[in-house]
Amino acid sequence: MQLPSSLLENAVAEFAKLPGVGKKTALRLVLHLLKQDVNDVQHFSETIAKMRAEIKFCSRCCNISDGDICSICANSLRNQRTICVVENIRDVIAIESTQQYSGTYHVLGGIISPLDGIGPDQLNIESLIQRIQKEGTEELIFALNPNIQGDTTIYYIQKKLQPSACNITTIARGIAFGGELEYADEMTLARSIANRLPVQQYVKG
Amino acid sequence: MQLPSSLLENAVAEFAKLPGVGKKTALRLVLHLLKQDVNDVQHFSETIAKMRAEIKFCSRCCNISDGDICSICANSLRNQRTICVVENIRDVIAIESTQQYSGTYHVLGGIISPLDGIGPDQLNIESLIQRIQKEGTEELIFALNPNIQGDTTIYYIQKKLQPSACNITTIARGIAFGGELEYADEMTLARSIANRLPVQQYVKG
Repeated sequence: MQLPSSLLENAVAEFAKLPGVGKKTALRLVLHLLKQDVNDVQHFSETIAKMRAEIKFCSRCCNISDGDICSICANSLRNQRTICVVENIRDVIAIESTQQYSGTYHVLGGIISPLDGIGPDQLNIESLIQRIQKEGTEELIFALNPNIQGDTTIYYIQKKLQPSACNITTIARGIAFGGELEYADEMTLARSIANRLPVQQYVKG
Repeated sequence: MQLPSSLLENAVAEFAKLPGVGKKTALRLVLHLLKQDVNDVQHFSETIAKMRAEIKFCSRCCNISDGDICSICANSLRNQRTICVVENIRDVIAIESTQQYSGTYHVLGGIISPLDGIGPDQLNIESLIQRIQKEGTEELIFALNPNIQGDTTIYYIQKKLQPSACNITTIARGIAFGGELEYADEMTLARSIANRLPVQQYVKG
Protein backbone atom coordinates (compact mmCIF):
# COMPACT_ATOMS: atom_id res chain seq x y z
CA MET A 1 0.00 0.00 0.00
CA GLN A 2 1.68 3.17 -1.23
CA LEU A 3 0.36 6.41 0.21
CA PRO A 4 0.36 9.69 -1.69
CA SER A 5 1.86 11.76 1.11
CA SER A 6 4.70 11.24 3.56
CA LEU A 7 2.77 13.11 6.29
CA LEU A 8 -0.06 10.63 5.85
CA GLU A 9 2.36 7.72 5.77
CA ASN A 10 4.03 8.77 9.04
CA ALA A 11 0.67 9.18 10.77
CA VAL A 12 -0.49 5.75 9.55
CA ALA A 13 2.78 4.19 10.74
CA GLU A 14 2.29 5.70 14.21
CA PHE A 15 -1.28 4.41 14.52
CA ALA A 16 -0.24 0.98 13.23
CA LYS A 17 2.10 0.65 16.24
CA LEU A 18 -0.94 0.42 18.54
CA PRO A 19 -2.00 -3.11 19.56
CA GLY A 20 -4.68 -4.62 17.33
CA VAL A 21 -4.40 -1.84 14.76
CA GLY A 22 -3.18 -2.94 11.34
CA LYS A 23 -2.17 -0.72 8.44
CA LYS A 24 -5.67 -0.65 6.92
CA THR A 25 -7.35 0.27 10.21
CA ALA A 26 -4.66 2.88 10.83
CA LEU A 27 -5.40 4.44 7.43
CA ARG A 28 -9.11 4.51 8.23
CA LEU A 29 -8.45 6.28 11.53
CA VAL A 30 -6.07 8.79 9.94
CA LEU A 31 -8.50 9.59 7.11
CA HIS A 32 -11.19 10.09 9.75
CA LEU A 33 -8.97 12.57 11.63
CA LEU A 34 -8.24 14.29 8.34
CA LYS A 35 -11.93 15.11 8.00
CA GLN A 36 -12.09 16.63 11.50
CA ASP A 37 -11.40 20.24 12.36
CA VAL A 38 -7.71 21.15 12.83
CA ASN A 39 -8.37 22.26 16.41
CA ASP A 40 -10.11 19.00 17.29
CA VAL A 41 -7.15 16.98 16.06
CA GLN A 42 -4.79 19.32 17.91
CA HIS A 43 -6.82 18.71 21.06
CA PHE A 44 -6.75 14.95 20.49
CA SER A 45 -2.99 14.96 20.14
CA GLU A 46 -2.39 17.26 23.12
CA THR A 47 -4.64 15.18 25.39
CA ILE A 48 -2.67 12.01 24.61
CA ALA A 49 0.73 13.66 25.10
CA LYS A 50 -0.39 15.37 28.32
CA MET A 51 -1.79 12.11 29.69
CA ARG A 52 1.53 10.30 29.17
CA ALA A 53 3.67 13.16 30.45
CA GLU A 54 1.68 14.11 33.54
CA ILE A 55 0.11 10.92 34.80
CA LYS A 56 1.50 9.65 38.09
CA PHE A 57 1.45 6.36 39.93
CA CYS A 58 0.16 6.25 43.49
CA SER A 59 3.17 5.99 45.81
CA ARG A 60 1.25 3.61 48.04
CA CYS A 61 -0.59 1.18 45.75
CA CYS A 62 1.03 1.85 42.32
CA ASN A 63 -2.37 2.54 40.77
CA ILE A 64 -2.73 5.31 38.19
CA SER A 65 -3.28 8.65 39.84
CA ASP A 66 -3.54 12.37 39.15
CA GLY A 67 -1.58 13.17 42.31
CA ASP A 68 0.89 11.51 44.66
CA ILE A 69 -1.80 9.35 46.30
CA CYS A 70 -4.66 7.87 44.24
CA SER A 71 -8.31 8.61 44.99
CA ILE A 72 -8.89 5.10 46.35
CA CYS A 73 -6.02 5.31 48.87
CA ALA A 74 -7.06 8.84 49.82
CA ASN A 75 -10.66 7.80 50.51
CA SER A 76 -11.04 7.45 54.28
CA LEU A 77 -14.41 5.70 53.84
CA ARG A 78 -12.64 2.68 52.37
CA ASN A 79 -11.17 -0.07 54.51
CA GLN A 80 -7.46 0.80 54.51
CA ARG A 81 -6.56 -2.48 56.21
CA THR A 82 -7.65 -4.69 53.34
CA ILE A 83 -5.43 -4.94 50.26
CA CYS A 84 -6.53 -6.53 47.00
CA VAL A 85 -3.49 -7.61 44.95
CA VAL A 86 -4.04 -7.28 41.17
CA GLU A 87 -1.86 -7.68 38.11
CA ASN A 88 -2.59 -4.37 36.40
CA ILE A 89 -4.69 -1.22 36.34
CA ARG A 90 -7.33 -2.82 34.14
CA ASP A 91 -8.10 -5.28 36.95
CA VAL A 92 -8.59 -2.36 39.36
CA ILE A 93 -11.09 -0.82 36.95
CA ALA A 94 -12.90 -4.18 36.51
CA ILE A 95 -13.22 -4.76 40.27
CA GLU A 96 -14.22 -1.13 40.94
CA SER A 97 -17.01 -1.40 38.38
CA THR A 98 -18.59 -4.23 40.41
CA GLN A 99 -19.01 -1.73 43.31
CA GLN A 100 -18.66 -4.67 45.72
CA TYR A 101 -15.19 -4.00 47.11
CA SER A 102 -14.43 -1.24 49.56
CA GLY A 103 -10.80 -1.91 50.49
CA THR A 104 -7.60 -0.71 48.81
CA TYR A 105 -5.50 -2.22 46.02
CA HIS A 106 -1.91 -3.05 45.24
CA VAL A 107 -0.99 -3.14 41.55
CA LEU A 108 1.88 -5.55 40.89
CA GLY A 109 2.44 -4.24 37.36
CA GLY A 110 2.65 -7.77 35.98
CA ILE A 111 2.94 -11.33 37.13
CA ILE A 112 5.86 -13.68 37.79
CA SER A 113 6.54 -15.39 34.47
CA PRO A 114 10.06 -16.82 34.05
CA LEU A 115 9.35 -17.73 30.41
CA ASP A 116 8.77 -14.04 29.60
CA GLY A 117 11.76 -13.06 31.72
CA ILE A 118 9.63 -11.42 34.42
CA GLY A 119 10.88 -12.13 37.93
CA PRO A 120 9.74 -10.82 41.32
CA ASP A 121 12.26 -7.96 41.15
CA GLN A 122 10.50 -6.33 38.20
CA LEU A 123 7.17 -6.27 40.05
CA ASN A 124 5.91 -4.13 42.93
CA ILE A 125 6.25 -7.02 45.39
CA GLU A 126 8.84 -5.52 47.75
CA SER A 127 6.68 -2.43 48.25
CA LEU A 128 3.70 -4.68 49.01
CA ILE A 129 5.61 -6.59 51.70
CA GLN A 130 6.79 -3.36 53.30
CA ARG A 131 3.33 -1.87 53.10
CA ILE A 132 1.75 -4.86 54.87
CA GLN A 133 4.28 -4.66 57.68
CA LYS A 134 3.96 -0.90 58.05
CA GLU A 135 0.19 -0.58 57.81
CA GLY A 136 -0.82 -3.58 59.91
CA THR A 137 -2.91 -5.01 57.08
CA GLU A 138 -5.62 -7.40 58.22
CA GLU A 139 -6.52 -9.11 54.96
CA LEU A 140 -4.69 -9.67 51.71
CA ILE A 141 -6.95 -10.73 48.80
CA PHE A 142 -5.29 -12.12 45.68
CA ALA A 143 -7.30 -11.28 42.55
CA LEU A 144 -4.92 -12.71 39.94
CA ASN A 145 -5.80 -14.59 36.79
CA PRO A 146 -6.24 -18.32 37.47
CA ASN A 147 -3.24 -19.74 35.64
CA ILE A 148 0.23 -21.05 36.47
CA GLN A 149 1.80 -17.57 36.55
CA GLY A 150 -0.95 -16.31 38.86
CA ASP A 151 -0.56 -19.28 41.22
CA THR A 152 3.24 -18.89 41.19
CA THR A 153 2.92 -15.24 42.14
CA ILE A 154 0.51 -16.04 44.98
CA TYR A 155 2.84 -18.76 46.25
CA TYR A 156 5.89 -16.47 46.10
CA ILE A 157 4.27 -13.57 47.95
CA GLN A 158 2.72 -15.85 50.53
CA LYS A 159 6.14 -17.44 51.27
CA LYS A 160 7.69 -13.99 51.63
CA LEU A 161 5.03 -12.95 54.13
CA GLN A 162 5.23 -15.85 56.55
CA PRO A 163 4.92 -15.83 59.49
CA SER A 164 2.90 -12.65 59.22
CA ALA A 165 -0.39 -12.50 61.06
CA CYS A 166 -2.19 -11.15 58.00
CA ASN A 167 -5.15 -13.15 56.66
CA ILE A 168 -4.57 -14.27 53.04
CA THR A 169 -7.42 -15.14 50.66
CA THR A 170 -7.97 -15.46 46.93
CA ILE A 171 -11.07 -14.69 44.88
CA ALA A 172 -13.38 -17.66 44.36
CA ARG A 173 -12.92 -19.87 41.31
CA GLY A 174 -15.96 -21.66 39.98
CA ILE A 175 -18.61 -21.81 37.32
CA ALA A 176 -19.39 -18.31 36.00
CA PHE A 177 -22.95 -17.00 36.20
CA GLY A 178 -24.76 -18.03 33.01
CA GLY A 179 -22.15 -20.71 32.37
CA GLU A 180 -23.12 -24.31 31.71
CA LEU A 181 -21.72 -27.23 33.69
CA GLU A 182 -21.28 -29.52 30.72
CA TYR A 183 -19.00 -27.00 28.94
CA ALA A 184 -16.87 -26.14 31.99
CA ASP A 185 -13.32 -27.51 31.98
CA GLU A 186 -12.51 -30.29 34.45
CA MET A 187 -10.18 -28.14 36.52
CA THR A 188 -12.79 -25.45 37.14
CA LEU A 189 -15.54 -27.99 37.80
CA ALA A 190 -13.32 -30.00 40.17
CA ARG A 191 -12.37 -26.86 42.11
CA SER A 192 -15.94 -25.65 42.30
CA ILE A 193 -17.01 -29.00 43.80
CA ALA A 194 -14.11 -29.02 46.25
CA ASN A 195 -14.85 -25.45 47.34
CA ARG A 196 -18.61 -25.92 47.54
CA LEU A 197 -20.64 -23.45 49.62
CA PRO A 198 -23.49 -24.00 52.10
CA VAL A 199 -26.68 -22.99 50.26
CA GLN A 200 -27.55 -20.50 53.00
CA GLN A 201 -24.29 -18.62 52.40
CA TYR A 202 -24.88 -18.72 48.64
CA VAL A 203 -28.39 -17.32 48.92
CA LYS A 204 -27.19 -14.58 51.26
CA GLY A 205 -24.63 -13.88 48.52
CA MET B 1 -16.59 2.22 33.89
CA GLN B 2 -15.03 4.66 36.33
CA LEU B 3 -11.40 5.52 35.75
CA PRO B 4 -8.99 6.42 38.55
CA SER B 5 -7.58 9.51 36.83
CA SER B 6 -9.07 12.40 34.89
CA LEU B 7 -6.03 12.51 32.60
CA LEU B 8 -6.67 8.88 31.72
CA GLU B 9 -10.37 9.52 31.32
CA ASN B 10 -9.81 12.41 28.89
CA ALA B 11 -7.40 10.36 26.79
CA VAL B 12 -9.84 7.43 26.66
CA ALA B 13 -12.66 9.80 25.65
CA GLU B 14 -10.53 11.18 22.79
CA PHE B 15 -9.67 7.71 21.46
CA ALA B 16 -13.29 6.60 21.78
CA LYS B 17 -14.27 9.33 19.27
CA LEU B 18 -12.46 7.42 16.52
CA PRO B 19 -14.64 5.23 14.26
CA GLY B 20 -14.90 1.62 15.41
CA VAL B 21 -13.20 2.33 18.75
CA GLY B 22 -15.36 1.75 21.82
CA LYS B 23 -14.55 2.71 25.39
CA LYS B 24 -12.91 -0.63 26.20
CA THR B 25 -10.69 -0.58 23.12
CA ALA B 26 -9.83 3.05 23.83
CA LEU B 27 -8.74 2.09 27.34
CA ARG B 28 -6.59 -0.73 25.96
CA LEU B 29 -4.88 1.68 23.55
CA VAL B 30 -4.31 4.32 26.25
CA LEU B 31 -2.88 1.78 28.70
CA HIS B 32 -0.57 0.60 25.92
CA LEU B 33 0.65 4.17 25.34
CA LEU B 34 1.12 4.54 29.07
CA LYS B 35 3.68 1.73 28.98
CA GLN B 36 5.65 3.40 26.17
CA ASP B 37 8.44 5.90 26.61
CA VAL B 38 7.33 9.53 27.11
CA ASN B 39 9.24 10.62 24.00
CA ASP B 40 7.61 7.94 21.85
CA VAL B 41 4.15 9.09 22.89
CA GLN B 42 5.18 12.71 22.32
CA HIS B 43 6.30 11.72 18.82
CA PHE B 44 3.03 9.86 18.20
CA SER B 45 1.01 12.89 19.20
CA GLU B 46 3.13 15.37 17.23
CA THR B 47 2.99 13.25 14.08
CA ILE B 48 -0.81 13.18 14.18
CA ALA B 49 -1.16 16.92 14.83
CA LYS B 50 1.41 17.78 12.16
CA MET B 51 -0.31 15.56 9.61
CA ARG B 52 -3.65 17.32 10.11
CA ALA B 53 -2.18 20.80 10.19
CA GLU B 54 0.21 20.55 7.25
CA ILE B 55 -1.38 18.16 4.80
CA LYS B 56 -2.55 19.76 1.57
CA PHE B 57 -4.92 18.79 -1.18
CA CYS B 58 -3.65 18.76 -4.76
CA SER B 59 -5.01 21.86 -6.50
CA ARG B 60 -5.54 19.86 -9.67
CA CYS B 61 -7.04 16.50 -8.64
CA CYS B 62 -7.98 17.11 -4.96
CA ASN B 63 -5.92 14.10 -3.87
CA ILE B 64 -3.93 14.28 -0.62
CA SER B 65 -0.56 15.88 -1.18
CA ASP B 66 2.51 17.14 0.61
CA GLY B 67 2.74 20.14 -1.74
CA ASP B 68 0.51 22.15 -4.04
CA ILE B 69 0.47 19.42 -6.72
CA CYS B 70 0.36 15.73 -5.77
CA SER B 71 3.03 13.26 -6.83
CA ILE B 72 0.71 11.58 -9.35
CA CYS B 73 -0.17 14.84 -11.14
CA ALA B 74 3.50 15.90 -11.06
CA ASN B 75 4.68 12.63 -12.63
CA SER B 76 5.31 13.32 -16.33
CA LEU B 77 5.55 9.58 -17.05
CA ARG B 78 1.83 9.20 -16.35
CA ASN B 79 -0.80 9.83 -18.99
CA GLN B 80 -2.04 13.32 -18.08
CA ARG B 81 -4.91 13.10 -20.60
CA THR B 82 -6.72 10.28 -18.80
CA ILE B 83 -8.68 11.06 -15.64
CA CYS B 84 -10.04 8.41 -13.29
CA VAL B 85 -12.92 9.81 -11.23
CA VAL B 86 -13.11 8.34 -7.71
CA GLU B 87 -15.15 9.03 -4.61
CA ASN B 88 -12.36 9.41 -2.07
CA ILE B 89 -8.67 9.08 -1.34
CA ARG B 90 -9.01 5.47 -0.25
CA ASP B 91 -10.11 4.57 -3.78
CA VAL B 92 -6.97 6.24 -5.19
CA ILE B 93 -4.84 4.12 -2.86
CA ALA B 94 -6.75 0.95 -3.85
CA ILE B 95 -6.34 1.58 -7.60
CA GLU B 96 -2.69 2.61 -7.21
CA SER B 97 -1.92 -0.63 -5.39
CA THR B 98 -3.05 -2.61 -8.47
CA GLN B 99 -0.19 -0.93 -10.42
CA GLN B 100 -2.36 -1.24 -13.54
CA TYR B 101 -3.36 2.39 -14.05
CA SER B 102 -1.02 5.05 -15.32
CA GLY B 103 -3.31 8.07 -15.78
CA THR B 104 -4.32 10.76 -13.29
CA TYR B 105 -7.20 10.96 -10.82
CA HIS B 106 -9.92 13.32 -9.77
CA VAL B 107 -11.20 12.89 -6.19
CA LEU B 108 -14.85 13.98 -5.89
CA GLY B 109 -14.75 13.98 -2.09
CA GLY B 110 -18.03 12.10 -1.92
CA ILE B 111 -20.92 11.04 -4.11
CA ILE B 112 -24.27 12.61 -5.00
CA SER B 113 -26.70 11.37 -2.35
CA PRO B 114 -29.82 13.52 -1.83
CA LEU B 115 -30.91 11.38 1.14
CA ASP B 116 -27.71 12.34 2.99
CA GLY B 117 -28.07 15.94 1.84
CA ILE B 118 -25.07 15.76 -0.50
CA GLY B 119 -25.62 17.54 -3.78
CA PRO B 120 -23.27 18.25 -6.71
CA ASP B 121 -22.27 21.62 -5.21
CA GLN B 122 -20.58 19.97 -2.23
CA LEU B 123 -18.40 17.79 -4.47
CA ASN B 124 -15.40 18.63 -6.65
CA ILE B 125 -17.49 18.34 -9.83
CA GLU B 126 -17.18 21.91 -11.11
CA SER B 127 -13.39 21.69 -10.92
CA LEU B 128 -13.53 18.40 -12.86
CA ILE B 129 -15.60 19.97 -15.67
CA GLN B 130 -13.23 22.93 -15.94
CA ARG B 131 -10.22 20.65 -15.82
CA ILE B 132 -11.51 18.51 -18.71
CA GLN B 133 -12.14 21.60 -20.86
CA LYS B 134 -8.78 23.16 -20.03
CA GLU B 135 -6.58 20.09 -20.34
CA GLY B 136 -8.14 18.54 -23.42
CA THR B 137 -8.75 15.25 -21.59
CA GLU B 138 -9.08 12.23 -23.89
CA GLU B 139 -10.64 9.69 -21.56
CA LEU B 140 -12.69 9.96 -18.40
CA ILE B 141 -12.93 6.70 -16.40
CA PHE B 142 -15.56 6.48 -13.68
CA ALA B 143 -14.42 4.22 -10.83
CA LEU B 144 -17.36 4.74 -8.49
CA ASN B 145 -19.08 2.15 -6.31
CA PRO B 146 -21.81 0.29 -8.22
CA ASN B 147 -24.92 1.59 -6.48
CA ILE B 148 -27.67 4.14 -7.10
CA GLN B 149 -25.60 7.05 -5.78
CA GLY B 150 -22.67 6.06 -7.99
CA ASP B 151 -24.85 5.76 -11.07
CA THR B 152 -26.56 9.09 -10.31
CA THR B 153 -23.18 10.80 -10.03
CA ILE B 154 -22.00 9.29 -13.33
CA TYR B 155 -25.25 10.39 -15.03
CA TYR B 156 -25.01 13.94 -13.64
CA ILE B 157 -21.39 14.49 -14.69
CA GLN B 158 -21.96 12.94 -18.11
CA LYS B 159 -24.94 15.30 -18.72
CA LYS B 160 -22.84 18.28 -17.69
CA LEU B 161 -20.10 17.31 -20.12
CA GLN B 162 -22.12 16.91 -23.28
CA PRO B 163 -21.39 17.57 -26.06
CA SER B 164 -17.74 17.24 -25.09
CA ALA B 165 -15.54 15.13 -27.32
CA CYS B 166 -14.03 13.30 -24.33
CA ASN B 167 -14.37 9.51 -24.22
CA ILE B 168 -16.31 8.37 -21.11
CA THR B 169 -15.98 4.86 -19.66
CA THR B 170 -16.69 3.09 -16.39
CA ILE B 171 -14.81 0.24 -14.74
CA ALA B 172 -16.15 -3.22 -15.60
CA ARG B 173 -18.80 -4.79 -13.41
CA GLY B 174 -18.96 -8.56 -13.26
CA ILE B 175 -18.20 -11.67 -11.27
CA ALA B 176 -15.16 -11.12 -9.04
CA PHE B 177 -12.15 -13.43 -9.34
CA GLY B 178 -12.68 -16.36 -7.00
CA GLY B 179 -16.42 -15.62 -6.87
CA GLU B 180 -19.00 -18.31 -7.59
CA LEU B 181 -21.75 -17.89 -10.18
CA GLU B 182 -24.47 -19.49 -8.06
CA TYR B 183 -23.94 -17.00 -5.22
CA ALA B 184 -23.75 -13.87 -7.41
CA ASP B 185 -26.76 -11.53 -7.26
CA GLU B 186 -28.99 -11.40 -10.37
CA MET B 187 -28.05 -7.81 -11.21
CA THR B 188 -24.32 -8.57 -11.34
CA LEU B 189 -24.83 -11.82 -13.21
CA ALA B 190 -27.18 -10.17 -15.74
CA ARG B 191 -24.73 -7.34 -16.35
CA SER B 192 -21.81 -9.69 -16.71
CA ILE B 193 -23.70 -11.67 -19.38
CA ALA B 194 -24.77 -8.51 -21.21
CA ASN B 195 -21.21 -7.14 -21.17
CA ARG B 196 -19.55 -10.44 -22.10
CA LEU B 197 -16.06 -10.33 -23.58
CA PRO B 198 -14.51 -12.19 -26.50
CA VAL B 199 -12.34 -14.94 -24.97
CA GLN B 200 -9.28 -13.70 -26.86
CA GLN B 201 -9.57 -10.31 -25.18
CA TYR B 202 -10.10 -11.97 -21.80
CA VAL B 203 -7.03 -14.17 -22.16
CA LYS B 204 -4.96 -11.18 -23.24
CA GLY B 205 -6.25 -9.54 -20.02
